[in-house]
Order: sequence, then C-alpha cells, then structure tokens
Amino acid sequence: MSGNPAPEGPVSTDRFAADPAFAVHEGGKLSVAPNRSITSIADLALTYTPGVARVSSAIAAEPELARRFTWAPRVVAVVSDGTAVLGLGDIGPAAALPVMEGKACLFSEFAGLSSVPIVLSTTDVDEIVDTVAAIAPSFGGINLEDISAPRCFEIEARLRERLDIPVMHDDQHGTAIVVLAALRNAAKVVGRELGDLRVVVSGAGAAGVACTKILLEAGVRDIAVADSRGVLHAGREGLTGTKRWLVENTNRSGFAGSMVSALEGADVYLGVSGGSVPEAAIASMAPNCIVFSLANPIPEVDPQMAARYAAVVATGRSDLPNQINNVLAFPGVFRGAIDAGATGITEEMKIAAATAIADVVGSDLRADYIVPSPLDRRVATAVAEAVGACARREGVTR
Amino acid sequence: MSGNPAPEGPVSTDRFAADPAFAVHEGGKLSVAPNRSITSIADLALTYTPGVARVSSAIAAEPELARRFTWAPRVVAVVSDGTAVLGLGDIGPAAALPVMEGKACLFSEFAGLSSVPIVLSTTDVDEIVDTVAAIAPSFGGINLEDISAPRCFEIEARLRERLDIPVMHDDQHGTAIVVLAALRNAAKVVGRELGDLRVVVSGAGAAGVACTKILLEAGVRDIAVADSRGVLHAGREGLTGTKRWLVENTNRSGFAGSMVSALEGADVYLGVSGGSVPEAAIASMAPNCIVFSLANPIPEVDPQMAARYAAVVATGRSDLPNQINNVLAFPGVFRGAIDAGATGITEEMKIAAATAIADVVGSDLRADYIVPSPLDRRVATAVAEAVGACARREGVTR
Repeated sequence: MSGNPAPEGPVSTDRFAADPAFAVHEGGKLSVAPNRSITSIADLALTYTPGVARVSSAIAAEPELARRFTWAPRVVAVVSDGTAVLGLGDIGPAAALPVMEGKACLFSEFAGLSSVPIVLSTTDVDEIVDTVAAIAPSFGGINLEDISAPRCFEIEARLRERLDIPVMHDDQHGTAIVVLAALRNAAKVVGRELGDLRVVVSGAGAAGVACTKILLEAGVRDIAVADSRGVLHAGREGLTGTKRWLVENTNRSGFAGSMVSALEGADVYLGVSGGSVPEAAIASMAPNCIVFSLANPIPEVDPQMAARYAAVVATGRSDLPNQINNVLAFPGVFRGAIDAGATGITEEMKIAAATAIADVVGSDLRADYIVPSPLDRRVATAVAEAVGACARREGVTR
Repeated sequence: MSGNPAPEGPVSTDRFAADPAFAVHEGGKLSVAPNRSITSIADLALTYTPGVARVSSAIAAEPELARRFTWAPRVVAVVSDGTAVLGLGDIGPAAALPVMEGKACLFSEFAGLSSVPIVLSTTDVDEIVDTVAAIAPSFGGINLEDISAPRCFEIEARLRERLDIPVMHDDQHGTAIVVLAALRNAAKVVGRELGDLRVVVSGAGAAGVACTKILLEAGVRDIAVADSRGVLHAGREGLTGTKRWLVENTNRSGFAGSMVSALEGADVYLGVSGGSVPEAAIASMAPNCIVFSLANPIPEVDPQMAARYAAVVATGRSDLPNQINNVLAFPGVFRGAIDAGATGITEEMKIAAATAIADVVGSDLRADYIVPSPLDRRVATAVAEAVGACARREGVTR
C-alpha cells in the first residue's frame, strides 16, 4: 500500500489519443456559421421574417437575383457514395465523410469557397443522378468524389447534361489537370515536346481515363493504356463503354501485350493503378524518361529505384518532391468557374488550369520542382483566373 | 454651369439600396469554414491524406465512431421544396433559399448547431422522400420547412419511419410547441385549466393540424377545427387523410357551421389560416377569452380590436407583445435531441419543449408576457435540456 506514488494527472484511456489525426477529427472538421450575428429584434426581422420575405419575393420575380442574394452560387457540394475512397475502396458513406470534410476544408482554405459534404446512402446510378439533380438548386457547383468506375463516368456525364452549374468528378479531372501540368514541365526539363512522347498509362479507372483524355487533347499522340489484363487494343473481346473509347483513341500501333512489355523504350510511365512495377521494366524505358507513380501511400514504382533510370520522378506523396496533388487544381477550377458564372467545366477550361499550374513554377523549374507545393497560395488564384478567362472566351457563362 | 456643386461620392443606382434586408442578404447569409486552418504540410497530412484514411478506416470498422469523428451528428439539414414559403406560397426552391439560410442562421445563433439549407428542384412526394433519405448520412437531423399541406404530412411520416435521426416539419411542430407553451401560460393568466377550455382552430393546414394534435395530447378536450368551408364534422363529404383524422378526434358535439358561428361562447381562438375575422365574432366569445392570431404580417384578428374583448392576445409579429415565434422551439428541440443521441422526436419530447418554454416566463407571467422573447438565450438551453431528458426517459436514444 506504500509503493510507488500514483502518476500525476489522469491516465489517458482513449485508444485514439496516440494518433493526432483523430484529434484533428474530433467533433468533425467543419462548421456553418452566419455571416452576421443576430443580437436584436431588428436583426431578426432582417435575417428572417418579415424582411426575408421581400428578398424571396424579389427572387421569385427575377430568378437571376438568387446569384446575388443567396449563398448558393458560392457553395460547392462535395458528393460521394463512398465506393472508391482513397486506397480504401468501398467503405460506405459514413466512413467516407471525413475525406469529404477534408475536401471541404481545402475548398475554404485555398479558394475561399463554402463547401458542403454530401454522402449518399445509395450506390445506384439513377438514384445518385436524381438525388444530386434534386438538391442542385442549393449549390453553385458539384464536386463528385470517390465514386467507383465505371459508374463515375455515367454519373458525371448525366449530371453535366442535366445541370447548368459546374460539375466535375475530381478523381478524374483534378488528377488529369495536375498530371498534364506536371508533364508539361517535365517535358521542358528533358527538352521534349508533348507530341513526341510515347506514354504508357497504367490503370483504366477514373484517373487513367481522364488523364488519357486530357493528354490527347493537349497534343500527346502516342499513348498506350493498360488495365489489369494488359494494354488495351482492338483485339480485346467484350470491351464496352469507356474502354471501347480508349481502344478507338489510343494505341495506334495496335500493340498487344503486357504493361511491362509496353514500357520498353517508352518516354513516360503514368501509374494510376496501384500494384508494383518491376525494376527491369523501368530500366527498359527510353533514356531521360519520366516516371509519375501516383498510387498512395505506396507508389507503383519505388521512387528511389525510379531515380536510377528516370530524369524526372513524381509521386502522390507529401514527403517527396514533385507531389501530384489534386489540391493544386480543384479549388481554383471551381473558384474560376463560379466567379465567371460558368454553366459547366469544359475541356479547354481544364487545359487552361493545367497550364496555369505549370506556369506558377516558372523559371524555378528543375527536375525535382515540376509542380508547385500544395500549400502555394499563388496556385488557386492563377488557376481561377485562367479558368474564368477561358470560360468567358468560350462563351459558356450565364 | 456654375450652379450647385455635384454631390460628393458616387450616386447609388442600386434599386435595392433603400431596403436594408437586401444588404443583409448580399452574397448570402452563411459560410462553411474549417474548424482548424491548414498552414503546413503536416496539417494537410492530418486533415486530408494520408491521415484521414486512418479515421475513415476506423469508422468503416466501427460505424458508431462517425458520431465522434465527423461533423454529421451536429448538422441539421433545413429542407424545403419552396411550395409554402411564409405568406408567399409556392415560389420555388431558389426564392425559398433566403428563408432556409435564415433558419440556418438561427440554428447556429441559438443552438450552436451547424445547419445546411437544402432546396429541392422537385415537388413530388416520392422524390422528396427518396432524396432526403439518400443524403441523410450527411446529417444529424432533418428540419423540413415550408412544404405545402397535405404533402408535408406524408413526407414527414415516411421520413420519420425511414430514418433513425430526428426529423421534424417545423411549420407543424415548431408552431404547435410554441402555441402550447403560450396557451399553458395564457390559461394561467385567466385562471383556467387546459381541459376546461373550448378552443376553435381556424385553419386545417400544416400548423392547424399539428396545433390541434398537441393540444389534444396536452389535455385540451373541446376543439373545433375549421377549414375554408367551415368547421370539420362527421357529416362533411369526401374528407380524406388528415381531415378525416381531425373529424374523428375533434368537435365531439358534432357542430356543423361556420368558423364564425363556432366562436360564440368559445374560450380560445387560434388563427393559423390568414384571412380576416369580423369584430362581432370576437365579441361573441366567452368572457376572459384568449386570441392567438398567427397570420403574418397581417393577423386574422386585428390585435387592437381583439384587446377590447380578450384577456390575452398573441400574434406572430415581432413588433407586438406575445410573439408566437418558432425560433423559441426548433433550435432547442434539435439541440436536445442531437445531444441525447435521439433517434427521433416523439410527441412527449414536443410537449416537454412546450413546458420548458412556458416555464422560462416563470413568475414574470403577465397577460402581455406569456412567452419569452425570441432573443431570450435561456430558452434554447432550457428546451434542449427538457427534450434530451425526455428522450432518455423514453429510451429513444441510441
């Protein structure tokens, strides 16, 4: 009974205390607050009844006034069904919510936009489209997030068709924009033109498809896309939808073989698939090759190994140089589209965003600095300006 | 040319400049912001990838952790299809949004709850139910608002059945709770018991039905409910749904006549209908009668006229004493239900809320002070405590 004294202070019994990520998430990461506080009956009568009735009446008579007198035009919904969350897969809406809250934090932090996470209890394509369309008058933009392929393609396409506000599936286009920005600068580092590069894309999911499309639009001509069964080519049986499109628009030489064999002599490896690429495959690439290996947290190609063969290496990791991070794209893309009153996000607007990201690097360009830091505050501003200017030039504003 | 000097500064050409309600609404009334700012790569790695993946994995394994590590349990969706907005009627989702933003401001201001306005592009009952159910994992409570009767009854009933979070149509139950609180105190002022009062309810819409139900549950025995065709009674043809229920549960004497004729000798007039009541009808009520005339901005009974006959007069107006304002109820009701982890809002919880509101008045009770001021900060706290205690007592918590 007279042994060692008890330790001072309470002993923590919280099994989450050791990981600061849980402390950051305690109680959630977001709050909604009024822009003005209500401290008098007069405030109440302006914010709520009877004053609000005059504002509602004005909007009922002139719908365009909603852009000025409601918050909707400046709010982005971050919508997910939780089927393809980070590297975790189909974990459902509740478990996906911290990711969507994180995304909303980034919209606020980097673009000054309000953003609301909307996680869905359905994974049915028709129900998702109908739900998002039903709530769309509440928002100025729809950021689709972590929805599995191929459902994500149809959901995005149908919502773009149905709504007159910006809709973007970020796993596709956010990644594609930053990849294009990085590839523009990587090509400069090695003194090559985009149109002369032979590119192998590993992965035909959301990111792989969108990266392929934007690279084709930006002038890359020779792309082979591989899924788990090897490079997509016209001889593959039973391809439908997006993979059919890829066959028709890539791999013009008709190469039929594995992703590894396609890498022989290639200039660019773009990994958006997970898995692991053997060293011999990277060693077989062309001199001065470029390796973008985006799987997180474990890149498909070990970055130290890649550096023995490639002139430029980029990953998705925050602890290595050249981080390909969507946060360089989506805040500025939505901010620019919303500020311009854009009715959608076109391919040209995405390419303008990529160019703006690449240009922020400017004359500081080096092999280990091809994209700005995710914290570089200049990026969202530059992207927003470029995207808005492009929207006005294309006449897709209201 | 040498006349009066030009006025200094620009002359305002904004046609909305004269009304301060528009200034308060410029750019909308709400913002979403992160609870912590992101200023380092370390912040980014905890708020977003890779740290967030550990939180999402934990929730995927143990769904109840979402209550601790996401914001959802503390966020109320304010959902409207814009079909019955204030006194304005069916003005649609965009024009309804300022009202929903105002409601969200009040949730934050009085209950410290985050709240997100969701306005819908559909007025179809099935679609509304499916949409709200689909987005429900994003929220800790659903406040239905300004949805027209009788659709509002079915929408609320089906969502209460389908969801395990608090769902409340505020036009019904918020009004009913405050009316019951006010009637409890008005009865005290005139020295009567609720069970001895003869009540005439003018209006069989959302508010009229809910007020009638809560008054019956609180012990009022003699209620006649009138719609535009007169008092509901068993002889009325073709009644369905809620009106059928009213016929079966009110007007036991089987009175068949106009609302005005029903007022003869009545103790309480409750107006939730709009329109206008002639002075002779109020003059025909019992001595020491009670008049609650809630139409806004123009009460059904002129308050000055009513004061010549009634012992207690209440309205919905902020510039008169005894304002029956839902803001006395909904912030505390949701806060109490959410804090207690309630899976719904029961009739007992509503009655507990009404008693708590009435009790805040306490010994200051007077004929012109039967309900607290809408700005009285004690109210939401008292309501939340009463509602939470009731939920725990009833065992409807998770």
